[in-house]
Amino acid sequence: MLGSTHGTLTTTHRSAARVLACGEGPGGAVHSRTPDDPGAERDVSGRPLRAPVPDLDRFFRPESVAVVGASDADGRPNTGITRQLLAWAERVGARVHPVHPGRREVFGLRCVPDVTELPEPVDVAVLLVADPLPVLEQLAGTKTRFAVAFASGFAETGPEGAAAQEKLAEAAARAGVRLLGPNTNLNAFERFRDDLAGPAIALITQSGHQGRPVFALQELGVRLSHWAPTGNEADLETADFLSYFAGLPEVGAVAAYVEGLKDGRAFLLAADRAARRGVPVVAVKVGRTEAGARTAASHTGKLTGADATVDAAMRQFGVIRVDGLDELQDTATLLARARPPRADGVAVYAISGGTGAHLSDMATAAGLTLPVLSEAKQAELHQWIPEYLSVANPIDNGGHPVGDWRGRKIIDAILADPDVGVLICPITGPFPPMSDRLAQDLVDAAEQTDKPVCVIWGSPVGTEDAYRTTLLGSSRVVTFRTFGNCVRAVRAYLDHHRFTRTYRSPFDDAPRTPSPSHRKAQSLLRPGQQLSEHGGKQLLRAYGIRVPREQLCTSAAGAVRAAAQVGYPVVMKASAPHLAHKSDYGLVRLHLTSASQVRDTYRELTDIARAAEIELDGVLVCQMVDPGVEMIVGLSQDPLFGPVVTVGLGGVLVEALRDTAVRVPPFGEEQARAMLGELRGAGLLEGVRGRPPADTDALVEVVLRVQRMALELGGGPAGPDGGGPREGSGLAELEINPLVVLPRGQGAVALDALAVCR
Amino acid sequence: MLGSTHGTLTTTHRSAARVLACGEGPGGAVHSRTPDDPGAERDVSGRPLRAPVPDLDRFFRPESVAVVGASDADGRPNTGITRQLLAWAERVGARVHPVHPGRREVFGLRCVPDVTELPEPVDVAVLLVADPLPVLEQLAGTKTRFAVAFASGFAETGPEGAAAQEKLAEAAARAGVRLLGPNTNLNAFERFRDDLAGPAIALITQSGHQGRPVFALQELGVRLSHWAPTGNEADLETADFLSYFAGLPEVGAVAAYVEGLKDGRAFLLAADRAARRGVPVVAVKVGRTEAGARTAASHTGKLTGADATVDAAMRQFGVIRVDGLDELQDTATLLARARPPRADGVAVYAISGGTGAHLSDMATAAGLTLPVLSEAKQAELHQWIPEYLSVANPIDNGGHPVGDWRGRKIIDAILADPDVGVLICPITGPFPPMSDRLAQDLVDAAEQTDKPVCVIWGSPVGTEDAYRTTLLGSSRVVTFRTFGNCVRAVRAYLDHHRFTRTYRSPFDDAPRTPSPSHRKAQSLLRPGQQLSEHGGKQLLRAYGIRVPREQLCTSAAGAVRAAAQVGYPVVMKASAPHLAHKSDYGLVRLHLTSASQVRDTYRELTDIARAAEIELDGVLVCQMVDPGVEMIVGLSQDPLFGPVVTVGLGGVLVEALRDTAVRVPPFGEEQARAMLGELRGAGLLEGVRGRPPADTDALVEVVLRVQRMALELGGGPAGPDGGGPREGSGLAELEINPLVVLPRGQGAVALDALAVCR
Repeated sequence: MLGSTHGTLTTTHRSAARVLACGEGPGGAVHSRTPDDPGAERDVSGRPLRAPVPDLDRFFRPESVAVVGASDADGRPNTGITRQLLAWAERVGARVHPVHPGRREVFGLRCVPDVTELPEPVDVAVLLVADPLPVLEQLAGTKTRFAVAFASGFAETGPEGAAAQEKLAEAAARAGVRLLGPNTNLNAFERFRDDLAGPAIALITQSGHQGRPVFALQELGVRLSHWAPTGNEADLETADFLSYFAGLPEVGAVAAYVEGLKDGRAFLLAADRAARRGVPVVAVKVGRTEAGARTAASHTGKLTGADATVDAAMRQFGVIRVDGLDELQDTATLLARARPPRADGVAVYAISGGTGAHLSDMATAAGLTLPVLSEAKQAELHQWIPEYLSVANPIDNGGHPVGDWRGRKIIDAILADPDVGVLICPITGPFPPMSDRLAQDLVDAAEQTDKPVCVIWGSPVGTEDAYRTTLLGSSRVVTFRTFGNCVRAVRAYLDHHRFTRTYRSPFDDAPRTPSPSHRKAQSLLRPGQQLSEHGGKQLLRAYGIRVPREQLCTSAAGAVRAAAQVGYPVVMKASAPHLAHKSDYGLVRLHLTSASQVRDTYRELTDIARAAEIELDGVLVCQMVDPGVEMIVGLSQDPLFGPVVTVGLGGVLVEALRDTAVRVPPFGEEQARAMLGELRGAGLLEGVRGRPPADTDALVEVVLRVQRMALELGGGPAGPDGGGPREGSGLAELEINPLVVLPRGQGAVALDALAVCR
Repeated sequence: MLGSTHGTLTTTHRSAARVLACGEGPGGAVHSRTPDDPGAERDVSGRPLRAPVPDLDRFFRPESVAVVGASDADGRPNTGITRQLLAWAERVGARVHPVHPGRREVFGLRCVPDVTELPEPVDVAVLLVADPLPVLEQLAGTKTRFAVAFASGFAETGPEGAAAQEKLAEAAARAGVRLLGPNTNLNAFERFRDDLAGPAIALITQSGHQGRPVFALQELGVRLSHWAPTGNEADLETADFLSYFAGLPEVGAVAAYVEGLKDGRAFLLAADRAARRGVPVVAVKVGRTEAGARTAASHTGKLTGADATVDAAMRQFGVIRVDGLDELQDTATLLARARPPRADGVAVYAISGGTGAHLSDMATAAGLTLPVLSEAKQAELHQWIPEYLSVANPIDNGGHPVGDWRGRKIIDAILADPDVGVLICPITGPFPPMSDRLAQDLVDAAEQTDKPVCVIWGSPVGTEDAYRTTLLGSSRVVTFRTFGNCVRAVRAYLDHHRFTRTYRSPFDDAPRTPSPSHRKAQSLLRPGQQLSEHGGKQLLRAYGIRVPREQLCTSAAGAVRAAAQVGYPVVMKASAPHLAHKSDYGLVRLHLTSASQVRDTYRELTDIARAAEIELDGVLVCQMVDPGVEMIVGLSQDPLFGPVVTVGLGGVLVEALRDTAVRVPPFGEEQARAMLGELRGAGLLEGVRGRPPADTDALVEVVLRVQRMALELGGGPAGPDGGGPREGSGLAELEINPLVVLPRGQGAVALDALAVCR
């Protein structure tokens, strides 16, 4: 189970409330139907193809609010909360109705004894009571839209709490109320600065404390529009807020702090919605070190870690994953503020050669490109910068020119270069005679350009005027504190726009109906069992994956006949269900060239099996395949995302190198190709030491066919409200190892297959 | 061929001044003799075995100072500099003698026209003149100890400048003066805060601007003792200051910003001295990428070596390499302040479960261990922390206990745990009612323990009182701003002490005299030529590395005779100097089992060679070696460190995986073993899929024997003052590929060898 200190278990406590409260999102939802809507589109696995977009306008901007458990008594914790809610309601222009059984009035407002007595249907009922269940039940029939449950002691405490939380979710669903929480807080109702300009960050967190640094960015001049503290996510979850925020015009980027995802598919659909709309999503996802301990018969099951799968899934849908909250702040700020790049080149401009060299080194190591500026541009810059300083990029001005009129001219000249998409100016140590004017020039120049201007203020003190007033006063400049965060953010920015420029949603192309292969496969599956090698290969053949010519033989004479039909030389292998790592037992023989060798080998293999007490279903006589690059392709189950597809170096290298790449279906051919590029040993496919390049097209095709098997047969996590798979038998695991990838144009052949049915 | 593709320069501008001005360091130098001292110990390659330790006491604390080019005229740049030097001299209690041909008095001090007229020998002469050469020449006979040259326009500008710089170095050497610069600045003479407690950081930088953030740490309460701005390093270099600082009792850690190392060996000897004394060295070394390296070279006029080799060399001698200046600050601060750990376990203590989970995740990903606290300790903590919160580690207090008397008790109880070596307390968002008291409790507790207490102040604003006053006011607590920097620094701290606990200097064990193999090898070398495979293997045999039985034959009949002696089956290979990748030409034949096959093969190989116009010196008839794990072991030349030893996966995997590890000699067996552990494909040696484990002992022995060849034959960068190698012929390159590592106990056999003589 992935970590979730706030009780958002991976898939099991998904609420049924979703069906009742979804509508067209304000930003023009791509699709408004809910997963349980019988008309909603689903792929062949039965999973939804579009993110539901809850209408949260009235949650964030309600017209009327009930505060259940309101208090104005001195010393009561709820008094402070009530006061904050009143202040918030005043800011958003909402009417407030206190609810308390023992009070007639709270802070001068008429108080009703319970929610059934509310004078009007409210948009938001904030439940400050220790047990929100009875209130949620009473809300049925009140036409309340949203409830917020502050109480803790639910899924975060263990199974009993989880059961109580499930009751909350059910009560909310029955009442037709969308529920935020339990175990949430006031974060959504904080005071947001309304004096800041520029595109805003919308924030989603599962922990209030962990969201605080991003919220505090407002004190550094960065605009924040929303904060969704999702708590235990009994109903409303990260994906809901992501879908909603992705449709709001004021949102430049979504920042998320995620401890555990409630529903992998829902998150990917929300990310897909953001990707289609070009809205960047930056996320911390805790769980880098979660073991994801699973038992699996195949290698790929063991080789593909839960976190590597989260990582791959996020990349597939353009979610920018970062590790620290400081990176979350910096990357979200840049991505919110910066317009699409006009070029991918980065210019580094510094008042010290050493600074420029150091930043250039880190930028290049982070994968950024520093184009050498043209001779003409360099000549232009040398009007203002002494000849002996290098202005090729990095541009070293030696310090003095920033102190006068030349400073601004240099910046403008750099920004005017068509090869330059981003300007980075590191100011390692403040030196007011230079850095004050430099900061102002950068701020002024940033107003006149649509290229991002990034500044690094390296002073650890951070109380200097040029920093606090000049730089942080700009809504155009993005100011970092470290080289590392700057170069990583710029890389993420360029990657994001490269990604969205070419993004095509894989959900659009996901198969809706079973392929003809699916029917063939049904007769080959043996629910709950591991198939024999021969059975596994028949399954592959049903999906159009090439396997050697082979026959399963049960006598020596039969083997000799089979060898003649298959064609010499042949390979012979003992065959039995549950028989893995045959070669370790000596149960595989290669390069048999005559009938007598085949006959002898048949006897040897059956003797070994008998001695080892392995019950064979026969001996396979197989075509001998030419050598090629040995790869592994597999299907395994991820607890969050269901069936996933892995490719890697195969044969004996599998265990030694653990060099694999994984993808969550659905994905397109370009992703299958990208998987190969992620392998450290990708060079093996290109041909080394005079060997011909391998048929990567055929390998990609096998990966895509295994994806098809994953979609049609792979099953997946079954949730109560529709994340679950199509019924029927299917595959729990599949591993092709080795898949021999022949030289280009000659295809790929699965020499062995291990299939476990469910 | 393995080898260095990055750097191109070798050490050329090493000054001869070193010989004249070294003495016993104040901290008790291990060795005071200089490299050119005929009595100084050297290894078999002719390189020194001990760092020279210049006596820099009088540089940093002079009794008398000359300011050459001093000025008090309004508007002259030197006037400000003179004023700063006077202030510094007053602080350190030095007499100042202005020198200027046109002035009688400067700031009321008597001014002499040139340095020959100085009233006394000075400790430091600061040269503010545009051309320091004549002054340096005049210093001869004045008994001046140190000169500091501010002027720029030397090696950083190109070859002409480098020649001028070399003249400076020579003049300084003739004058018996140690020279700092040229192209340096006032950093060494800045005002250091003397009100700060605790062990200090000593700073070495090649760029003033880039040192500024570490210097500014003083404003955050971190003590700094020295700053050495080494500039162009015509004479005094990073290694000199490192050796000196490592002997000072007030120095807790050395922080260095390095663009290019002047002399690789000198740096390693200095790092060795620091490692022997347990002084941590934290360094940014620019040059992660080629672009950065190019810029660094043009900036300081010095070389930057192949980065992987720099990385390995630093690790060998315990230098902690970091990327950003923020990491340099944070890591150096922790390492300066923290005493040796009593345990390697890290406790994470947070006021929010989410914060604890996130930090724990990042800590574990960084390789830290979070021990589960004992039942008894957990029960103790639950006296103050509600039962439903987890205190197993991370310890979540839920917030409230930090606001009262319980807060301190919890911290003390955690610190008292014997499994806990380090306490990390992340305070993600300031909430004064809690965080103010928490900060004070942490500061108070840190006074009472010798375990490091690390705090992360996550607020991006950084102007809060609890941070600025309480936390930064402590010389015991180490306060970070990001989770990432904290966990990396703690990892470096634990690694450093693990390293120094077991450190044994490889210089102590480096061979001083040639082995008997060396003489045998001399007759096999062919200066300037590449040896034939057979010649290369003879060289290996001379060094006790096993090769197959083989004979070089020049006739078919001879081949048949040889095969009988070698023993069937045999391998036959065409042999010629300069013949690489023989198998690509079909010039290698395996598994020949009869005289007729040998006879036919001889003819085929010679036919192919004739057709390809390859002049053979014969055909090798070799013993056929059993299969094993194919590795590569090589010797190549690094421009900075001279001959280095590489090991990696061999055979066809070499090019596809580029999975190698490198070490700079001298290194011991434990480092040779560690090299294998660094390989991603290390698992291949452990035996996969039922294969037996490989004879790693034999592999390690081959690596060590190749190191011996590197030391005795490898040569290296030749510097004018003794960094250079023993004269005579030797090896430029050596590559064994494949080295077949047989199953454990059976050894390793070099199947092919490529040797290039110099």
